[in-house]
Amino acid sequence: MTQPPVDELTKFFHILCDAAEKQTLPRFRTRLAIDNKEAEGFDPVTEGDREAERAIRALIQQHYPDHGIIGEEFGAHNETAELQWVIDPIDGTRSFISGLPLWGTLIGLYQNGIPIAGVMDQPYLGERYLAVDGKANMFYQKGSPTPLATSSINKLSNATLFTTSPHLMQNTTDEAYFNVEQQVELFRYGCDCYAYTMLAAGQIDLVIETGLFIYDIAALIPIIESAGGVVTNWQGESCASGGQILAAANQELHEQAMDVLV
Amino acid sequence: MTQPPVDELTKFFHILCDAAEKQTLPRFRTRLAIDNKEAEGFDPVTEGDREAERAIRALIQQHYPDHGIIGEEFGAHNETAELQWVIDPIDGTRSFISGLPLWGTLIGLYQNGIPIAGVMDQPYLGERYLAVDGKANMFYQKGSPTPLATSSINKLSNATLFTTSPHLMQNTTDEAYFNVEQQVELFRYGCDCYAYTMLAAGQIDLVIETGLFIYDIAALIPIIESAGGVVTNWQGESCASGGQILAAANQELHEQAMDVLV
Repeated sequence: MTQPPVDELTKFFHILCDAAEKQTLPRFRTRLAIDNKEAEGFDPVTEGDREAERAIRALIQQHYPDHGIIGEEFGAHNETAELQWVIDPIDGTRSFISGLPLWGTLIGLYQNGIPIAGVMDQPYLGERYLAVDGKANMFYQKGSPTPLATSSINKLSNATLFTTSPHLMQNTTDEAYFNVEQQVELFRYGCDCYAYTMLAAGQIDLVIETGLFIYDIAALIPIIESAGGVVTNWQGESCASGGQILAAANQELHEQAMDVLV
Repeated sequence: MTQPPVDELTKFFHILCDAAEKQTLPRFRTRLAIDNKEAEGFDPVTEGDREAERAIRALIQQHYPDHGIIGEEFGAHNETAELQWVIDPIDGTRSFISGLPLWGTLIGLYQNGIPIAGVMDQPYLGERYLAVDGKANMFYQKGSPTPLATSSINKLSNATLFTTSPHLMQNTTDEAYFNVEQQVELFRYGCDCYAYTMLAAGQIDLVIETGLFIYDIAALIPIIESAGGVVTNWQGESCASGGQILAAANQELHEQAMDVLV
């Protein structure tokens, strides 16, 4: 099984994102309507998640029936295939339900377990971060691509660090995170996948998280790496299956953070 | 001294925001360029802050020379005037420098110390939240106004709470904040002024902060109140000078939060 050609793959990622947007965006910021209607059991997040993943899976099965799929909502399909699509239809559910445009649709492509391409789409902002063939670009409002490049900040004391929430750092090994927090110039909470795209865009320098599932990180690995960043688990090994994540703008910064984490 | 007529005031707020945008937006997400150039001492945030406030002050002095001005960057002017403009050119500096589009330009108007009108402008998102004459609207991409209305969530256990950072709750009285955090359905960190506009838009239900300056909250008070919300200090008194802030979607929720805070 070979990868689809670069142009075909690029076009297909856009098709997938366009289809997902139709299911997510109309459900964003609908909370007030729900609240007013007092509609019991209507949950736009869950609906958006499910319908977006359904749309993505249908397109993959139509275009590439032999490929495998790992999705947050509907599990695994063709588990033994060499090429696997990994989907999180809405990453950042808590942003989504709070009206913050920092959630994203994540779609990654693995070959023999190695992340080779991926996209993060934030349709309200009109920002699409895509990595294909070792090149990472941001498409703004579906216009021309802008190349992504990580920062050259190479000291912890100059770095900006993001994590989703300090409350997720609960057990003894996770608490090492706070050692990094103490050494950076600035740390901020609350971004989910958007933090990784800001890292790829050179706006911030470190993202450290724990407890991620494969679909939370799959799409982001090629985006970070193709932009010049380094992303592994806290031991410096592959994070393609999720777990504790350390993403850094460059190798030097990655090593410094790992020294403090382990 | 009487207030400018409603139409004139509305038009003037848009003029002020348009002028500020020209100074802030081109400096947003310029970090990578700075990093690459290694330009010492060039600080786009500070520059953006100063130039935006200069532009706003110049327009106020031109249109309303008798009015007073209180600005974050350049202090007070005409301190005894009945009508005072209160300016924070870039609220959410840490979002600004991290590439997150959750900062805002805040401009409030006080009459005898009482907030009567205000605007929060987020130019990257194209979102402008404006309250004039007791009516709050969001203008998207400079289009038609959409009325703002807070949620009817009236129980802490169903509420979504935002605060900028738990690390700002440092002294004994501030720690009462954590009692509220324990009772809500969902809490999130990291939004500055954007949290208050999400409250006004009915997307979230509570914002609790401490240590705010007058220019951090002035513009937001009329937006919240005109959308149906309640915003005071933690003792239920006016927060027009800043301090500990409790903003709630409605009176019932405000009372429940205050019971836990005091």
